[in-house]
Amino acid sequence: MMNFNYYTPTRVVFGRGTLDQTGELVKAQGAKKVLIHYGGGSAKRSGVLDRVKESLAAAGVGYAELGGVVPNPRLSLVREGVELCRREGVDFLLPVGGGSVIDSAKAIGYGVANGGDVWDFYDFKRTPAACLPVGAVLTIAAAGSEMSDSSVITNEDGWVKRGISSDLCRPRFAVMDPELTMTLPPYQTASGCVDILMHTMERYFNGQAEPMVLTDALAEGLMRTVIDASHVLVREPDNYAARAEVMWAGSLSHNGLTGCGTGGGDWSCHKLEHELGGLFDVAHGAGLAAVWGSWARYVLDADPARFARFAEKVLGVEPGADDTETALRGVAAMEGYYRSIGMPTSLRELGVEPTEAQIEELAEKCAVTVHGRMGAVKTLRKGDMAAIYRAAR
Amino acid sequence: MMNFNYYTPTRVVFGRGTLDQTGELVKAQGAKKVLIHYGGGSAKRSGVLDRVKESLAAAGVGYAELGGVVPNPRLSLVREGVELCRREGVDFLLPVGGGSVIDSAKAIGYGVANGGDVWDFYDFKRTPAACLPVGAVLTIAAAGSEMSDSSVITNEDGWVKRGISSDLCRPRFAVMDPELTMTLPPYQTASGCVDILMHTMERYFNGQAEPMVLTDALAEGLMRTVIDASHVLVREPDNYAARAEVMWAGSLSHNGLTGCGTGGGDWSCHKLEHELGGLFDVAHGAGLAAVWGSWARYVLDADPARFARFAEKVLGVEPGADDTETALRGVAAMEGYYRSIGMPTSLRELGVEPTEAQIEELAEKCAVTVHGRMGAVKTLRKGDMAAIYRAAR
Repeated sequence: MMNFNYYTPTRVVFGRGTLDQTGELVKAQGAKKVLIHYGGGSAKRSGVLDRVKESLAAAGVGYAELGGVVPNPRLSLVREGVELCRREGVDFLLPVGGGSVIDSAKAIGYGVANGGDVWDFYDFKRTPAACLPVGAVLTIAAAGSEMSDSSVITNEDGWVKRGISSDLCRPRFAVMDPELTMTLPPYQTASGCVDILMHTMERYFNGQAEPMVLTDALAEGLMRTVIDASHVLVREPDNYAARAEVMWAGSLSHNGLTGCGTGGGDWSCHKLEHELGGLFDVAHGAGLAAVWGSWARYVLDADPARFARFAEKVLGVEPGADDTETALRGVAAMEGYYRSIGMPTSLRELGVEPTEAQIEELAEKCAVTVHGRMGAVKTLRKGDMAAIYRAAR
Repeated sequence: MMNFNYYTPTRVVFGRGTLDQTGELVKAQGAKKVLIHYGGGSAKRSGVLDRVKESLAAAGVGYAELGGVVPNPRLSLVREGVELCRREGVDFLLPVGGGSVIDSAKAIGYGVANGGDVWDFYDFKRTPAACLPVGAVLTIAAAGSEMSDSSVITNEDGWVKRGISSDLCRPRFAVMDPELTMTLPPYQTASGCVDILMHTMERYFNGQAEPMVLTDALAEGLMRTVIDASHVLVREPDNYAARAEVMWAGSLSHNGLTGCGTGGGDWSCHKLEHELGGLFDVAHGAGLAAVWGSWARYVLDADPARFARFAEKVLGVEPGADDTETALRGVAAMEGYYRSIGMPTSLRELGVEPTEAQIEELAEKCAVTVHGRMGAVKTLRKGDMAAIYRAAR
């Protein structure tokens, strides 16, 4: 097993009614004026924004606000946020939403706390030295950004989607009320569950000869829990317990816990999806589901025992004659699971039909961001990436 | 499921060779002069203390030192540490050891950062408002104090053992090198494994009608991992992987993770053991093993389904005719496990034979600290506590 660092300083306040603690949590951080950052109209319509404002007012904390964050959040709005924060003297960022909103707030935090153009950090030209503090009010269980060190932003100039990681941006607190996620449409709920599963799967398929037994046990328990809860949510979108399981799993799946001792994990599917999401603006989790099976079949021969273990421990697949057979059954079972919750297992089902030229463009963009190679299970180069995109069509 | 807070700000640096990062970690906290706090001669003999001092010197951090911490750490040494820190201008506490040493450091931290007598906090007369920052170098996997909010101290005046909990004392960092635990004697290793298991078992037996599925899955995976690894360590005390599994499980078992959504847990066995440890100075984990079976049989009828689930999921017990039969088989299997790693399942095996008067004294001390009643599975009063002590003889 590999050495590891684990750092999850976020104060989690979880459960019914916790939204109303937001103001006190912000005040405890010493903030004077926050930026309430959010997406479309749902936060307004649901009354969540009003409750946040009331809670801030009760705690005597001022605010500015900036809505309009979209899935695959845009650099232009980040830049607008940076200017707004400087103009208004904002000293704390309060995203109210899901991963896109939180990631956008983190990017604003980098922009405000460092000079120069914020895209430099996402273009790997500079490393951020600081970040304005962030506290999250979570309304979508998916990205895990409420506890994670990562932020993913899309630059409209070239539609490039890039993510960076730094402990500087880990939220100071996260308010997680599962009731706030009950009105999410089924597609978004399912897409979130895939994203949560993939954050652990990327770490679970890690190419290590001897992964940590405890980490595997936690990862497998988490994945089984999400799969079971996602099935419940197909039938009962307002099942509080299932919403809570998924929400907490979303945080634990991307705060580092399920990667301890694994050496970091694979992350190829995330890279493949990031470029897809940049070019076609698809839902992140759905994009991951669409490419995962093709990735798995492409790399499976490099570690059939691991895929066989996944098949048995997570999906309850009956073992076949050998690891490869069990592994292939597991990939098919996982695709069956994706379909059962309404998720795609191909680009076509995702609603995307890239041309050959676009596949080359996707693979090229992918390769550039990873210095030509990626993957822990099997090293993938540009040609491999294009082959996986093609197989996923 | 219950609402919960989760806060684990400790920066974990885990693996081979991490000890030499201690100086840089202290420096990053802005410390100018630390108190190196430790136990007996083993930290000196093993060379760990010298490596810590070299690491501090390389980082340009000064130090004072105070050894002599014993299991069930004493109030008198805590008071000595408080005076020493004030005299020497210490601004950071660096315990090098296991839970006793870290708990003692936390108590010193409370003493330095607040006025008055430090025992007031443990006697529930005052609540600490601050704590000098602590960073831990862990050499014994057991108590989980390296990430926990708790500190347990024994007052020699009356031999009263008391614990308090506050986020203020959670260590800023924890250096965890499993190699440092390889020279622990078998009894101490096994006792540590029991303590780790019990930190999750106390949370797992929680009296909730609908505990969190994810928390149960994580808890069960953790307990299975510790049981398997402890068996390996009986045969191979220097098995790095097993030492690492146990060490990381020790932190996760008491940082709050395995209690999320459970409402807090039971903690009766810990209370029963605390008074035993205060009066007879036994190893904490061994004391827990000695009382657990008697506690379990005493309360089992209040929640047979939960004990049956534990039997099947954690111990792999074949189910009996009903939950009670499965549950009883599970208790027997757990006692068999304790014996298999050299742990006692009764007070006599623990080496303690309390008189009737001493049992009344233990129950009385226990009852006083919990305002007359304790337990989430079943409410226990003084008479129940005495009955469990008696059954454990």
